[in-house]
Amino acid sequence: MEKKYELIVIGSGPAGEKAAVKAAYFGHKVAIIEKEAYFGGAGVHTGTLPSKTLKETALYYSGKTDKGLYGVERKLEHEASVKDFLYRKNIIVDSINDEVHQNIIIHNVDIYTGDGSFVDEHRVKVSGEKEEVIYGENILIATGSYPFQPSNIPFDQKRIHDSDSILELTNFPKSICIVGAGVIGCEYTTIFAAMGAKVYLINNRDKILPFLDDDITNELVEQMKKDGIEILFNNSFTDIEVPESDQDLIKVSMKDGDPINVDMFLFAAGRSANTRTLNCEAAGVKLGKREVVEVNEKYQSSVPHIFAVGDVIGFPALASTSMDQGRVAISHIFDINDLNKISTVLPYGIYTIPEVSMIGITQEEAEAQEIEYCTGIARHKDMPRGRIMGVEDGFLKIIFSRDDLRILGVHIIGPLASELIHYGMTLVHNESKVNDVLRAVFNYPTLHDLYKYACYDGLGNLTGHKIKK
Amino acid sequence: MEKKYELIVIGSGPAGEKAAVKAAYFGHKVAIIEKEAYFGGAGVHTGTLPSKTLKETALYYSGKTDKGLYGVERKLEHEASVKDFLYRKNIIVDSINDEVHQNIIIHNVDIYTGDGSFVDEHRVKVSGEKEEVIYGENILIATGSYPFQPSNIPFDQKRIHDSDSILELTNFPKSICIVGAGVIGCEYTTIFAAMGAKVYLINNRDKILPFLDDDITNELVEQMKKDGIEILFNNSFTDIEVPESDQDLIKVSMKDGDPINVDMFLFAAGRSANTRTLNCEAAGVKLGKREVVEVNEKYQSSVPHIFAVGDVIGFPALASTSMDQGRVAISHIFDINDLNKISTVLPYGIYTIPEVSMIGITQEEAEAQEIEYCTGIARHKDMPRGRIMGVEDGFLKIIFSRDDLRILGVHIIGPLASELIHYGMTLVHNESKVNDVLRAVFNYPTLHDLYKYACYDGLGNLTGHKIKK
Repeated sequence: MEKKYELIVIGSGPAGEKAAVKAAYFGHKVAIIEKEAYFGGAGVHTGTLPSKTLKETALYYSGKTDKGLYGVERKLEHEASVKDFLYRKNIIVDSINDEVHQNIIIHNVDIYTGDGSFVDEHRVKVSGEKEEVIYGENILIATGSYPFQPSNIPFDQKRIHDSDSILELTNFPKSICIVGAGVIGCEYTTIFAAMGAKVYLINNRDKILPFLDDDITNELVEQMKKDGIEILFNNSFTDIEVPESDQDLIKVSMKDGDPINVDMFLFAAGRSANTRTLNCEAAGVKLGKREVVEVNEKYQSSVPHIFAVGDVIGFPALASTSMDQGRVAISHIFDINDLNKISTVLPYGIYTIPEVSMIGITQEEAEAQEIEYCTGIARHKDMPRGRIMGVEDGFLKIIFSRDDLRILGVHIIGPLASELIHYGMTLVHNESKVNDVLRAVFNYPTLHDLYKYACYDGLGNLTGHKIKK
Repeated sequence: MEKKYELIVIGSGPAGEKAAVKAAYFGHKVAIIEKEAYFGGAGVHTGTLPSKTLKETALYYSGKTDKGLYGVERKLEHEASVKDFLYRKNIIVDSINDEVHQNIIIHNVDIYTGDGSFVDEHRVKVSGEKEEVIYGENILIATGSYPFQPSNIPFDQKRIHDSDSILELTNFPKSICIVGAGVIGCEYTTIFAAMGAKVYLINNRDKILPFLDDDITNELVEQMKKDGIEILFNNSFTDIEVPESDQDLIKVSMKDGDPINVDMFLFAAGRSANTRTLNCEAAGVKLGKREVVEVNEKYQSSVPHIFAVGDVIGFPALASTSMDQGRVAISHIFDINDLNKISTVLPYGIYTIPEVSMIGITQEEAEAQEIEYCTGIARHKDMPRGRIMGVEDGFLKIIFSRDDLRILGVHIIGPLASELIHYGMTLVHNESKVNDVLRAVFNYPTLHDLYKYACYDGLGNLTGHKIKK
């Protein structure tokens, strides 16, 4: 007989896991379908955590953050192989895979392994080792996304990679060409550069990471150049020639200028929603651009009892928001009413070297919205904690209203940016004013001092009374 | 002719510097008196920054935070000498000394070098290379504190140290006995242990750092023991025998139990206010216990135009609060009204290994105040960011009101505790509730996730409905 559930979740990534577990915690009968032999989706296996771990590995191997600081240098016992480079990443992925699996099990969520596809609006067929149809009063689509693969690129998962296959690289490139200056492209650019590779970053626009504040991207571009990274703006590749022998270089022909000759090629421009094999038509679920599931603010699709969360609904496609989308959807499905809306003030964390994070509006947005704003900046190298850490670059910038001194945006580039931003998140969220920060006492020495000195700088800019430059 | 100032500041430590510079920024004529040849006081030279830098040096040399994580180990090029150990500390101290000096100069504050002492309630005599009396409409005492030296300890600044002379050590001890389990004693205990010394910490009470939450101190004691540190609770030394030869060990006799034989001895129990040479009687300024200057909430002494800030007024004697006390005093002296009161919610940061930080009330205080409270805990090792960092111990604990779920206290032990606490500071300060944290979206993966999962754990404790342990 057909098994019946109050909720079927398709996909065990960050969005699906948190949703399934929350529903089960509140006493509902839940099934989760995972097509892979592992749990956690791209968040654990190919996206978020692997690249963040590789970033830490690259920093460790390169000694980039402590070189020259302590009088005595540290050296690797032997040169790191590709196997070494992937060692920690594999440990982390395996351990969090287990954690997600355990979390699902202890919450008594039934696990189905195989591809899920709609039979009708309440029935999902699981095509695994055997085929089975299960019934769900409610269904949550959390199938994530996959790297977009243009047909003119000869992907071979050996020298020509997308952002999934790059995690299985077997040779460490001396040079690499990366296409796409979004989050993934920029993160891998700085990881490979820290590992000593010559990196060419191809960007078809005149800005990298265009949603960031211009001062931040300019600083990031400067620091990338310092690290020997070559960024080709307003350019694109026209052809890729892969030679027979792995000893010979790949030739990447460009729209403008000379071809680039490299060991490896990584395409990291865009991801598409995983809906192709879902058979959404059978349930009447409407899809939008790039095959995303269209949802309302409750994460409800065009079919009222079918919801969708995470990468499969598109922007912002971040593990952090995806988890909370999952929790919010469950709140609506089962009328739990504990979390009916995701925060409207979302932080962005970009784990490049140096790290970047932001909350609230950028200076360009303030201008576009014709807000009477003012800015203030504090630099890591002027903070005692920054000195101790030996940070030479990096800064925190605040944007605040000239009228009432309300803080509207915070932008950070430098170590720990993705942690430090959360204090700024509360400022923007609580509509705090510059003087509220001046009244706060921070532990000393910490990088949170950046907030206080950016506020002092901002007041100096506002009044035109500045003694320090 | 006698020089006249609107403000004389005595001492250029964190409190004095910020006060002098703020008064000058607002257009007032200011003099600062510094008895040393350097600027920044204990905050820069003997207290705050040196020990924090030595902590980072110890972590670097020991490789404690990354050992075993990345497959390939890092090794020091050669064994670190004492000179190496002090190398970074000296760079930091020199650079911030210059910074403070420059800050005073560009604000056009007149600098006097020498001991300052009151002639009368408006006149201060500076006894330096030459002697000079200057007149101040207002006077701010910011002379700091010095390590208390009991007469039964044969301090020699070679093997028997206080917390000033330890910074000039010339031999690295294989074993050390540290007396005093306050902030300074505990910080040096973990620094020397990380550098491989056998450390005996003598504590005349049954708790270290008694103002902390018991769960935190218990964890700190556990981790200290793991690192081979021996803590002698409810005990004290009765005698110290220093042998003629430096090759022989110092014998420390104990009230209870066997004597301890060590290379080095550090007394780090208590500091006294620097008021002995100030001649406060001449101005009529009243002193209290341990020679501190008694002040009201405006930092005004018994003489209305004489103020005092920083260590010289006693608790909490932290660089962070001292700076803001200086700024608040200036606000009152010159009716600036920008910062009339220091924040009532002060964070404490203790730079032990592991780091500890807190804001708001402890569980013991909640009990003493008969508050209906509940707690929640999240562990670093359960957070993806903690896994990436390889943190095995450490946790964040929240204390919240059972009635309205208001967050009353946050306690953290583990890496970056002193940074992470500031998000908790805004929670306590804004009277935020557990559900406010659940609604927040944090960058992923970050250690700020600890806040969210501590809140989930707290709700589980509150309802008695917990699936995970």
